[in-house]
Amino acid sequence: MTNKNLIDLEAMSTEQIDKIIRKAKKIMQSPPDFRHACDGKILATLFYEPSTRTQMSFQTAMLKLGGRTIGFDNPMNSSVSKGESLKDTIKVISGYADIIAIRHPVEGTAMAASLYADVPVINCGDGGHLHPTQTLTDIVTLSSEKGRLDNLKIGVCGDLLNGRTVHSLIKTLAKYSNNSFVLISTEELSVPLYIIDILEKNGCKYEISNSLADAIVDLDVLYMTRIQRERFKSTEEYEAQKNIFVLDKEKLDKARQDMIILHPLPRVNEITVDIDDDPRALYFKQAQYGMYGRMALILLLLQDEDFVIESREANISDHKCNNPKCITQQEEYLPNLSYEKKGMIMCDFCDKRID
Amino acid sequence: MTNKNLIDLEAMSTEQIDKIIRKAKKIMQSPPDFRHACDGKILATLFYEPSTRTQMSFQTAMLKLGGRTIGFDNPMNSSVSKGESLKDTIKVISGYADIIAIRHPVEGTAMAASLYADVPVINCGDGGHLHPTQTLTDIVTLSSEKGRLDNLKIGVCGDLLNGRTVHSLIKTLAKYSNNSFVLISTEELSVPLYIIDILEKNGCKYEISNSLADAIVDLDVLYMTRIQRERFKSTEEYEAQKNIFVLDKEKLDKARQDMIILHPLPRVNEITVDIDDDPRALYFKQAQYGMYGRMALILLLLQDEDFVIESREANISDHKCNNPKCITQQEEYLPNLSYEKKGMIMCDFCDKRID
Amino acid sequence: MTNKNLIDLEAMSTEQIDKIIRKAKKIMQSPPDFRHACDGKILATLFYEPSTRTQMSFQTAMLKLGGRTIGFDNPMNSSVSKGESLKDTIKVISGYADIIAIRHPVEGTAMAASLYADVPVINCGDGGHLHPTQTLTDIVTLSSEKGRLDNLKIGVCGDLLNGRTVHSLIKTLAKYSNNSFVLISTEELSVPLYIIDILEKNGCKYEISNSLADAIVDLDVLYMTRIQRERFKSTEEYEAQKNIFVLDKEKLDKARQDMIILHPLPRVNEITVDIDDDPRALYFKQAQYGMYGRMALILLLLQDEDFVIESREANISDHKCNNPKCITQQEEYLPNLSYEKKGMIMCDFCDKRID
Repeated sequence: MTNKNLIDLEAMSTEQIDKIIRKAKKIMQSPPDFRHACDGKILATLFYEPSTRTQMSFQTAMLKLGGRTIGFDNPMNSSVSKGESLKDTIKVISGYADIIAIRHPVEGTAMAASLYADVPVINCGDGGHLHPTQTLTDIVTLSSEKGRLDNLKIGVCGDLLNGRTVHSLIKTLAKYSNNSFVLISTEELSVPLYIIDILEKNGCKYEISNSLADAIVDLDVLYMTRIQRERFKSTEEYEAQKNIFVLDKEKLDKARQDMIILHPLPRVNEITVDIDDDPRALYFKQAQYGMYGRMALILLLLQDEDFVIESREANISDHKCNNPKCITQQEEYLPNLSYEKKGMIMCDFCDKRID
Repeated sequence: MTNKNLIDLEAMSTEQIDKIIRKAKKIMQSPPDFRHACDGKILATLFYEPSTRTQMSFQTAMLKLGGRTIGFDNPMNSSVSKGESLKDTIKVISGYADIIAIRHPVEGTAMAASLYADVPVINCGDGGHLHPTQTLTDIVTLSSEKGRLDNLKIGVCGDLLNGRTVHSLIKTLAKYSNNSFVLISTEELSVPLYIIDILEKNGCKYEISNSLADAIVDLDVLYMTRIQRERFKSTEEYEAQKNIFVLDKEKLDKARQDMIILHPLPRVNEITVDIDDDPRALYFKQAQYGMYGRMALILLLLQDEDFVIESREANISDHKCNNPKCITQQEEYLPNLSYEKKGMIMCDFCDKRID
Repeated sequence: MTNKNLIDLEAMSTEQIDKIIRKAKKIMQSPPDFRHACDGKILATLFYEPSTRTQMSFQTAMLKLGGRTIGFDNPMNSSVSKGESLKDTIKVISGYADIIAIRHPVEGTAMAASLYADVPVINCGDGGHLHPTQTLTDIVTLSSEKGRLDNLKIGVCGDLLNGRTVHSLIKTLAKYSNNSFVLISTEELSVPLYIIDILEKNGCKYEISNSLADAIVDLDVLYMTRIQRERFKSTEEYEAQKNIFVLDKEKLDKARQDMIILHPLPRVNEITVDIDDDPRALYFKQAQYGMYGRMALILLLLQDEDFVIESREANISDHKCNNPKCITQQEEYLPNLSYEKKGMIMCDFCDKRID
């Protein structure tokens, strides 16, 4: 099965990612050339939980292509979310809009929406599960600023255990040749084993570090994420470690002049404001690259017939996924779609193992 | 008095309804021809209670005509609704917008707004009173799918007592020749007597049925509505009857192949999802027809000089309407407008009898 | 330092104000000529507190210029406002939008935003501090309706103590020659001394009155504002005085035929509805003039290279402003910007004295 949705960046080939990047760069070079590319088209932004930055990025992307937007930003304001099934909402919106960008607190919702939509669906975040256009943002930034996606030494720092953006970035960059990683975190917040598996399977070099000051020295890229206090067992533990992972002027002085600093934002205190004006600090420009990446994505999904994304082969399994955070728990009409991975049966919506 | 507002579909002649339908069909045939029809025009959607579906339908309609939209979707976010009179809000918005679509929880609000607006006003629902563009949606769907608005056998099923969409649809279709109706409901939820009066006055055949399975057999149209648990005296009563009025595959098998199923949405459980893919299930397409109907309505109100809607002759009555749900109870400056009906004095805002 | 922001109307020369007025009049004469003036441009309306009227006025202004808008209307719906610094939000939005209109409950926020924005910033109200486009609205109305901004006798009535719109209007009109003022209020709500200072420094005649009925007789302009009950020490006091400051038909009968009535809206009861249709009642049309004024402002900030607004000379002071309502109390990275006034050190954000 092939489709015109972006649910999971994993489903995209590197050729497709490269195609998005090339398109994004073309748009950046001459935005006025694309000002009418989506004339008469409508993007629906269905945000079942607020995420102003992502929503505004998509809205701006569509407006800069000449299209228009409709949508909502909060389930409380939304009658469609009161008692109505996701399917019914998606069916109705398919009659209004040419493309749908959906955000939802429950895992697998974008995938579920894509089953019923008559138009392309973009996943703008489904709970703690996937957020593919954030990784797209990171990749467009890297390619534009470093000129390549391979032969990079990438430091990722902060909460590597829970940060879905970090996992997705590593998985994507592992597909490009000769990238190496420095995983900078406390032991408690180190990457899950399956990420190590992916690195090893792809033959990527990696180091584990618990010192940002040491690790920063020879990086091409430093990807910072925030550490959340609630992840720590005690306040003492948090207080003891939090400053190790604050990027400040002193640590930055040890980095190369051509290193670039990325951050998915919002930041809390893990990057001090006094380095915001350093030319290596690219986290604000990164948000703008994200907008161009989304413009490219919308264009390709709407207008490039060859830009179809392979879906994973799925079966109907005998029993339901029992992940309580999975959309199948809420929307009862959904089929028990599953796929096989390493001999296990996995839920096609939330990617958790079905017992 | 004539005007350019749509407050109550009753005020429209069948010629005017037919004109909207013809325009809607023209737009459907070639949407790009209308992409700039409202260039430079602004629609204000003033939604004093959330109704995302209706609001998005209007916004999409205006955007597809080349116009733009402003508005709000919730009184809590709206400073105009804090302490400010409806009149003042409408006066100010009249200075910004070319046409106003208003939704309000209080009966008669759209009518009140039209007294002060300098631009056309469309009623998008005023409490439990009127919702004319829903009926417009139903009528555009019927005409497009059945090719006619007369000589139809229409089944209406569910809560016929409280469903304003059902009442409005019956009143409208009763004006066309040779339509007959099957009123399918429990005794408790049967149509009010005034609807029976209208049917008899217009010479319409009608049957009363308490079995959807029996009634479905020879219908041209089945109009489903949801039954609300709180309408029943006891849970037992509700449980006993609710399944009679669920349209499922088994019942649908008895229907004609050219019968069409409509529903104003949102549905709860009164249509099972397994018939959604049946070609007779038109409730999702119906929402799209509604969008085209709204496009036609906006166009005619803004651009067709001949499209003026006759207002009812109104007088100033001696005392105020005392319907506690009427807008005159909240906005004290409103005149005591009334009209005569069968020798009674009726409120011109909420259509209730003035004592 | 010069810039392209409108934070405080005080920073504008009368030549610049006149330029906005001239541009606004040109737009009013032929709106279609400006329908594509801002094609491809995006206005971000960042409303950290709801103010539907102001937000819709800006949105309409941009849409009528051919531009598009993004933004939010409530911090509760806005992830950017959750924990993220103002600076970071502004930096990101600068990558999306061509111009920013910001409203915030805290004093000095627009000024703070302008320090980090890469695009022009317009202050749409920062707490009880400044609201320059309201005064712009008043001035455009006056110039359009009276044909001049000098040689006017202006009555200002209501709460002259707390009304920031009244203070700003007086400060602006005092710069034009031969304007005189009648300050109509109770003693408790009379203008602050610094306003009297400004009037005297500019050589403006002024009278103090506690009777609207007496004062109205020979005014060119009557500027009404609402009185808030909570400003009075007792309910008795409020009840005793409130009717003195209600403009009704009887008082209006004493006014000249060419007097005009303005009000920043929303009104409560200080103007009776029965004079709304009097040709002198311009408060609704005033809102429309405000929209044209905002169109002119956006155009000049975006397109007129010569339209740069002089910033006050600022220094870094030794200690922080300690006004608890000042933005510097919330956003810790802000520099301690200050300026000198009459030998005192003033906060450059909130204009309060720094102790």
